[in-house]
Amino acid sequence: MSSPEHPALESAVLEANARFYSAFSAGDFPAMSELWARHAPVTCLHPGAPLLVGRPLVLASFREILSERPAFRLRCDSPVVSLHGEVAVVLCYEGGEGAPAHLAATNVFVLENGEFRMTHHQAGPLSSPRSDPRRTDLN
Amino acid sequence: MSSPEHPALESAVLEANARFYSAFSAGDFPAMSELWARHAPVTCLHPGAPLLVGRPLVLASFREILSERPAFRLRCDSPVVSLHGEVAVVLCYEGGEGAPAHLAATNVFVLENGEFRMTHHQAGPLSSPRSDPRRTDLN
Repeated sequence: MSSPEHPALESAVLEANARFYSAFSAGDFPAMSELWARHAPVTCLHPGAPLLVGRPLVLASFREILSERPAFRLRCDSPVVSLHGEVAVVLCYEGGEGAPAHLAATNVFVLENGEFRMTHHQAGPLSSPRSDPRRTDLN
Repeated sequence: MSSPEHPALESAVLEANARFYSAFSAGDFPAMSELWARHAPVTCLHPGAPLLVGRPLVLASFREILSERPAFRLRCDSPVVSLHGEVAVVLCYEGGEGAPAHLAATNVFVLENGEFRMTHHQAGPLSSPRSDPRRTDLN
């Protein structure tokens, strides 16, 4: 599943994925907007919510979520990258600060003008919160 | 979001997506196995469950789910296709027979030897069950 034959691409995908969580955690809407695709179709399934289709609707949802203060610090645990040419899928767990992960997520990225940009995000609840085995502070 | 410029590709994706639900509903493990990618990485996030990575683990989970009798008839409502070259993402709602949809799903397909095959599936619960507006029997 890891892609040792494409380490540079995999690193670029993981960096884009990390930007999603840093923008989310900082309540930084411009950074979040920058991350999402300009040309590829944009869709989002927030936990429990109906499908959002199109950049305006998806970004409006993030503008609202990211406007909350204090910002909700969302962490990404154990990301797994699947590369498919210029499309990448990242699977990971999501959790709040200092707590085990409570969500599982699918993040889809496409290469646009040399940058991996997000084209789809789904997050849904885990039945059992999950500690990242590499984070001893949460075990 | 629909892709009128690629109607044949979009139809092929929707047919592959429909095969997932027909295999699931028929408890037809060989058809489900046939649908999943041979070469691309295979991952799955069943509702509430931890990530499954790799064809053996993912197919073992479906073998178990599909062995239940009577089979659980799973319907796909309102599929939306995003095409990214030889990768396609289908977003849809999932529901049992005669009931409003209770899950939202992301299904990712890749073109392998001229066939769209599934490379990733995530389904998660909807906060409110959702009737397909085109299905008057569920409204």
